[in-house]
Amino acid sequence: MLFFVADNISGDPTMYEVYWKQMGDKTTLVLSGWQSISYFSDTKNHCWFLEPGFANAVTRLHNLVGNAQTRNYHIVVGTGSTQLFQAALYALSPSNAPEPMSIVSAAPFYSSYPLIVDCLKSGLYKWRGDASKFNKDDPYIELVTSPNNPDGSIRQAIVNGSGGILVHDLAYYWPQYTPISFQADNDIMLFTVSKCTGHAGIRIGWALVKDKEVAKKMTKFIEISSIGVSKDSQLRAAKILDVIADTYEHTEKFDKSTLFFHYVYNEMAKRWRQLRSAVSKGQTFSLPDFPVEKCNFSGQRFGTQPAFAWLKCEKSIDDCEKFLKKHKIFTRSGTHFGSSENYVRISLISHKEEYDEFIRRLYLLSSMDNP
Amino acid sequence: MLFFVADNISGDPTMYEVYWKQMGDKTTLVLSGWQSISYFSDTKNHCWFLEPGFANAVTRLHNLVGNAQTRNYHIVVGTGSTQLFQAALYALSPSNAPEPMSIVSAAPFYSSYPLIVDCLKSGLYKWRGDASKFNKDDPYIELVTSPNNPDGSIRQAIVNGSGGILVHDLAYYWPQYTPISFQADNDIMLFTVSKCTGHAGIRIGWALVKDKEVAKKMTKFIEISSIGVSKDSQLRAAKILDVIADTYEHTEKFDKSTLFFHYVYNEMAKRWRQLRSAVSKGQTFSLPDFPVEKCNFSGQRFGTQPAFAWLKCEKSIDDCEKFLKKHKIFTRSGTHFGSSENYVRISLISHKEEYDEFIRRLYLLSSMDNP
Repeated sequence: MLFFVADNISGDPTMYEVYWKQMGDKTTLVLSGWQSISYFSDTKNHCWFLEPGFANAVTRLHNLVGNAQTRNYHIVVGTGSTQLFQAALYALSPSNAPEPMSIVSAAPFYSSYPLIVDCLKSGLYKWRGDASKFNKDDPYIELVTSPNNPDGSIRQAIVNGSGGILVHDLAYYWPQYTPISFQADNDIMLFTVSKCTGHAGIRIGWALVKDKEVAKKMTKFIEISSIGVSKDSQLRAAKILDVIADTYEHTEKFDKSTLFFHYVYNEMAKRWRQLRSAVSKGQTFSLPDFPVEKCNFSGQRFGTQPAFAWLKCEKSIDDCEKFLKKHKIFTRSGTHFGSSENYVRISLISHKEEYDEFIRRLYLLSSMDNP
Repeated sequence: MLFFVADNISGDPTMYEVYWKQMGDKTTLVLSGWQSISYFSDTKNHCWFLEPGFANAVTRLHNLVGNAQTRNYHIVVGTGSTQLFQAALYALSPSNAPEPMSIVSAAPFYSSYPLIVDCLKSGLYKWRGDASKFNKDDPYIELVTSPNNPDGSIRQAIVNGSGGILVHDLAYYWPQYTPISFQADNDIMLFTVSKCTGHAGIRIGWALVKDKEVAKKMTKFIEISSIGVSKDSQLRAAKILDVIADTYEHTEKFDKSTLFFHYVYNEMAKRWRQLRSAVSKGQTFSLPDFPVEKCNFSGQRFGTQPAFAWLKCEKSIDDCEKFLKKHKIFTRSGTHFGSSENYVRISLISHKEEYDEFIRRLYLLSSMDNP
């Protein structure tokens, strides 16, 4: 299993539950028994399974936040951004090439990338690992995750090959995690409801795609692999994204404390303060530093406060995951992310109770002279 | 696009809308804003993204209808049976074989099988076409679709190889389409909400799997390819399946005309009568005949009345699809199903208005001396 429960290994965004409970029935959705009968959502759209209300909500939210261009982009909906990632690989890899397309990403990279890419031993594409070690002249696809999972860094493409195509995974490019300092306008940008609103169980992601033919091929992949995407979840996602926009655009109807991104930003800031405070108690651990920038959305200046901490064990601790596990702190070793066992990834978006308990244990451990 | 609108090419089950509208608010589902936050549905189940309520509803419905064993089976949920089909191929194909596993199915076969199997040019498995022409001694997976899409035939495995594994696609093994004459107990059985209740846009299917390790590997595939399955849609499907069972098990609360399978059986029977009547007007077309059997669920004796008609153009008409298209009847050529152009597949589960118009046109054409 990629994910584990009641710990900080998985990226299960249960932190968000409090906010949505607080919003009461504002995001309640009523679905009638005769809804979702047809396969089709919009026969005029090349992405025929895209619910128009969801497409509108996506465009509206990007326009509000300013994190990505939507004008002249095609929206493709997927069963999470995971399916869209595969759709992009399918769309971008030629079907008749002598060798599979090389897929690379700079280490540390999202641990699921190699698993997804090599899962079916595809003849279309193949995982080639760390982009910084890739120097082939052949065509390649570079995955650029920014802010990066697991280490939170803001990234650009790093391979300088002639035949490169970029896929930008912008799951975490939202103002609770990082300053929105520019409006992204890459060729293919992937987003997911999970990391934006916290609704991971909805399994809805979307891609903003510049080239119409690429969008069509991505749609084809989703048609073949799952004959479209849950309408129910698209309708729920539309409602949720619209309520987020409403908290900003219809301020007469909402209390100021319900401004979604502000609320979650504050929670993330608090969690990072707690984490940095625990780590600074001793010399056992260290964390990456992030440059402070101005967020064009909130007007505030701050450094990235990622959904994951990329913790390093210092001193003579080699296997950080093992060391922490001995002290009942459950994390994910850097080795899964193409990095060393000196690092672990820790989720910061779990339930408050779990997070507080994690901080308590880390604080104790960090304070010891010889842990 | 695999599907087209306002015609009888796709299998869009819009026929079902009337029934569910008639049921009013009995299948209405209310979803709160804080639902579907976590990735997890049931951490005690190896299929950790399976909603317990959906699993219960599936078991309850099979027990009511008697079409499949559920005792000692593991349930895996998928984004339609399409995703489960891929999960089964992944689970059953060895990861280190020198050659890809051969995937076969007797022609005429479901036109999406070859597209799905060969989509990513997998090194794990490969489409080898018509099972009746397969005589290799190597391992293979035979897909047994019963009742069959496109021709409605009741099927058994036909390859007699030593290294064979069977996957049974039982999407249409429900009493509105065919007599339930036995309780299926195959190793892997695939079902989908789309063809059972008509909710195609929900994108929910399920597999009944005998072997725990196979179920675990199928779960793994769905974890890698989409990190689980929409919770919202599982909850909706659970509600819908439960209401169907309620119409039979809580008859004090429901009018007799609302018995789901009886209602849809009658509609299918009427449509088949109309179709056979139109075809029998002349010698231009013919349809397969189906043996009459007793249905253990309804107690009635009838012949299969499939969701699709497998129509043959007789006389000197070679390209049946082209011929019908000239007369504004839109169908899908037999060539897509590994068969000849003398045949076409026609959906019988479209909206009443569409279906009536199709019958009207077919009747006219069939009545002509020299169409």
